[in-house]
Amino acid sequence: MNDLVERLRQVLPPEALVTDQDRIQSYRYDRAMFCPAGEPIAVVLARETAHVVAAVKIAADAGVPVVPQGARSGLSGAANAIEGCLVISLEKMDKILEIETVDRYVVTQPGVFNAVLSRAVAEQGLFYPPDPSSWEFCSIGGNLSTNSGGLCCVKYGVTTDYVLGLEVVLADGQVLRTGRRTVKGVAGYDLTKLIVGSEGTLGIITEATLALRPEAARPRTMAALFDSGRTAGEAIVEIIRSGVSLSLLEIMDRTTIMAVNSYKRMDLPTEAAAMLIAQSDAGGEAGAADVATVAKLCRQYGAIECIEADDPAEGELLLEARRAALVALDQLGTTMIDDVCVPRSRLADFISAVEQISLDLDITIGVLGHAGDGNMHPTVVFDAEDPDQAARAQAAFDKVMEVGLELGGTITGEHGIGMLKRDWLVEEIGPVAVSVHRAIKAALDPKNVLNPGKVVS
Amino acid sequence: MNDLVERLRQVLPPEALVTDQDRIQSYRYDRAMFCPAGEPIAVVLARETAHVVAAVKIAADAGVPVVPQGARSGLSGAANAIEGCLVISLEKMDKILEIETVDRYVVTQPGVFNAVLSRAVAEQGLFYPPDPSSWEFCSIGGNLSTNSGGLCCVKYGVTTDYVLGLEVVLADGQVLRTGRRTVKGVAGYDLTKLIVGSEGTLGIITEATLALRPEAARPRTMAALFDSGRTAGEAIVEIIRSGVSLSLLEIMDRTTIMAVNSYKRMDLPTEAAAMLIAQSDAGGEAGAADVATVAKLCRQYGAIECIEADDPAEGELLLEARRAALVALDQLGTTMIDDVCVPRSRLADFISAVEQISLDLDITIGVLGHAGDGNMHPTVVFDAEDPDQAARAQAAFDKVMEVGLELGGTITGEHGIGMLKRDWLVEEIGPVAVSVHRAIKAALDPKNVLNPGKVVS
Repeated sequence: MNDLVERLRQVLPPEALVTDQDRIQSYRYDRAMFCPAGEPIAVVLARETAHVVAAVKIAADAGVPVVPQGARSGLSGAANAIEGCLVISLEKMDKILEIETVDRYVVTQPGVFNAVLSRAVAEQGLFYPPDPSSWEFCSIGGNLSTNSGGLCCVKYGVTTDYVLGLEVVLADGQVLRTGRRTVKGVAGYDLTKLIVGSEGTLGIITEATLALRPEAARPRTMAALFDSGRTAGEAIVEIIRSGVSLSLLEIMDRTTIMAVNSYKRMDLPTEAAAMLIAQSDAGGEAGAADVATVAKLCRQYGAIECIEADDPAEGELLLEARRAALVALDQLGTTMIDDVCVPRSRLADFISAVEQISLDLDITIGVLGHAGDGNMHPTVVFDAEDPDQAARAQAAFDKVMEVGLELGGTITGEHGIGMLKRDWLVEEIGPVAVSVHRAIKAALDPKNVLNPGKVVS
Repeated sequence: MNDLVERLRQVLPPEALVTDQDRIQSYRYDRAMFCPAGEPIAVVLARETAHVVAAVKIAADAGVPVVPQGARSGLSGAANAIEGCLVISLEKMDKILEIETVDRYVVTQPGVFNAVLSRAVAEQGLFYPPDPSSWEFCSIGGNLSTNSGGLCCVKYGVTTDYVLGLEVVLADGQVLRTGRRTVKGVAGYDLTKLIVGSEGTLGIITEATLALRPEAARPRTMAALFDSGRTAGEAIVEIIRSGVSLSLLEIMDRTTIMAVNSYKRMDLPTEAAAMLIAQSDAGGEAGAADVATVAKLCRQYGAIECIEADDPAEGELLLEARRAALVALDQLGTTMIDDVCVPRSRLADFISAVEQISLDLDITIGVLGHAGDGNMHPTVVFDAEDPDQAARAQAAFDKVMEVGLELGGTITGEHGIGMLKRDWLVEEIGPVAVSVHRAIKAALDPKNVLNPGKVVS
């Protein structure tokens, strides 16, 4: 152990190595609930790729597991420390290296926050779509490692759709460059998209080239309130079927609406059992037509109220309810956010099933999520001090995934597996896919150095 | 050998096994130039996944390499037979299994032609964007194996962007199911996108779930003629920079224009050195505005003529010149189509460099391609009977890739590696990436059963 620290000290600048036990504590956990974390031996605050290479080589040599870390905003425990590990944090590799406006890409280090990158490219008239709710405090490296989604996925897709190429430090310290800077390219296996979403188990991302889009038009926004979750789900199906192109389509259930009401004093009608919020950024008459279509369909499907925003500021106000949802639920107790994605045609069934779970287990569950792509975040609210409630919360959390799978969905739409859902992954993908995961992991990391025990074990 | 055939005969229905030497001949080659092909022992015409499983197991057991085949329309030799191999053709697995209009996906067998699938989903008001020029005679399985592009990639992306999940027969005969039917999902490694583009070296795709979009609006089309390739390249840069959203942006050079003129009697102006064709399918005023913007920029950048189509039929007429380009070049001699993708900002440099190669090597090269994403298809035209010309053609073909790499591009934007570009792949991706390719290949196919020697060796 001391030998490891000594060897690191010899090759790293002093500011790149943390061995102080108090400081180390803050590098133990991401934001997942119910996931254990061990004590790291040390934390490397890499300033450049060479630091990552050196640290990985020394750790591999010493047989010490490496846990790569971004901003620790993840929700599945993928970044949690392992007992006796070396944490390699990328938070100090936080420079945007290049923004190219014709080929439309940005080259960035992994420690840059999503919001910082998004704003930097917006200043050049460009748009980086992936927008996780945590965008102000999550890093691009973490987004890549978990293949993050966000609110505008319904129109623009997820992180992997924007990754052109990566620089990756492999388990043996070699530096792999994947992909390209061109729009298209099919030279060899798609190593880029294999690394994206692999949660630091196959390599450590030290640089990324990300595709950008031209900036979108100003969004038009509307909201609709329903007196049942089921009718809201049915309206969603008809909205999708209409082919209208929305840049956002969110839903909140009664529990969430009430939490937002009391937290933000928003005066949403108390009889509302579900709220939909829709945006179109098609611009001009097209955007207005999109929103009008959605409003018409919502009324047809029994909306008790439809609000069309007159301007972007009013639109932002409508969205504020959604943005405040998680914090509002947090006021009610400890929250545990699930992340199930179901076929859109089964959303109404899913919402009903979650209501039933809540009744059966006598536990509060607020449902919110990205209705446009079926990615729901049922959020279990409980008193963590009460062991019985905590057990029921855990049971509800699992039951939600079970229902998701039964409806043809997946246990994670955007938060990833980490430690939290490792057993459930086996359930979802089955033994053949698990064996392929293990074979790939063993091929790229034969000594099991990188984030061992995460995703697959 | 006879033992292999005997064992196959025992488990396959008679119509699924071809051993007749004459019939076998037609399963030896895809459409690549200069790629050798061996003699297969037999061809399996699989009707169902179980036939693929049985054939792979028997071949693996006998140590016989397996070459999976779609419609043999590929351009890189990936589907060429290997001496003494077993060809497994998927052409008879040609059923569309399900079209879902709310979750917007199609479940299909691999042997379905792209055009057949595209039309079937269009009948349901849906849209499968990937549209390789060969769409009338290429199969979805081949599109998946090579990660095909097409004309509308500039707006809609390539094949991999539409693959939700796959059924894949692995090298040991196990059946892997990857992905999901939901819009989003991050459960485990992205095995789906690893298999896509792997050219039959990691598994044999027997079923695919593909994402669909709502149908697009009718396209608006325009064309512009320039008296130099360089000014056309500069216009393209400004068109991209303007942020206008085009569903197609194609280019043809003087050689190609002249070939089309003489083949189709199109009366394109003889002084034209480059022709751009642009489409917008934004619909309504947005589409009209897009096309007007492009026309204005083309005039600003010195276009000698701009033609805006008044209706879709006239637009189709403009596109006909582009669609006829390859056949027109074929009239001039044997053609060898290259497939280099460069950063869009370097298109003008690329076009000039290819002109120079043509002069230096005294060989005809027609340049055509997808200008909107930088994916160019310089097509070398030569007399295959003349060994000296054939050698210069091969040299020109290689030189085009060299220039592509020098300009920061890739040796293949959409046709793949196969046998044709295997040595160039090493040049492009370097030794670390090659070793990762080999490690993944060995992990998934330790006995090197599936399409050995393709992509990487």
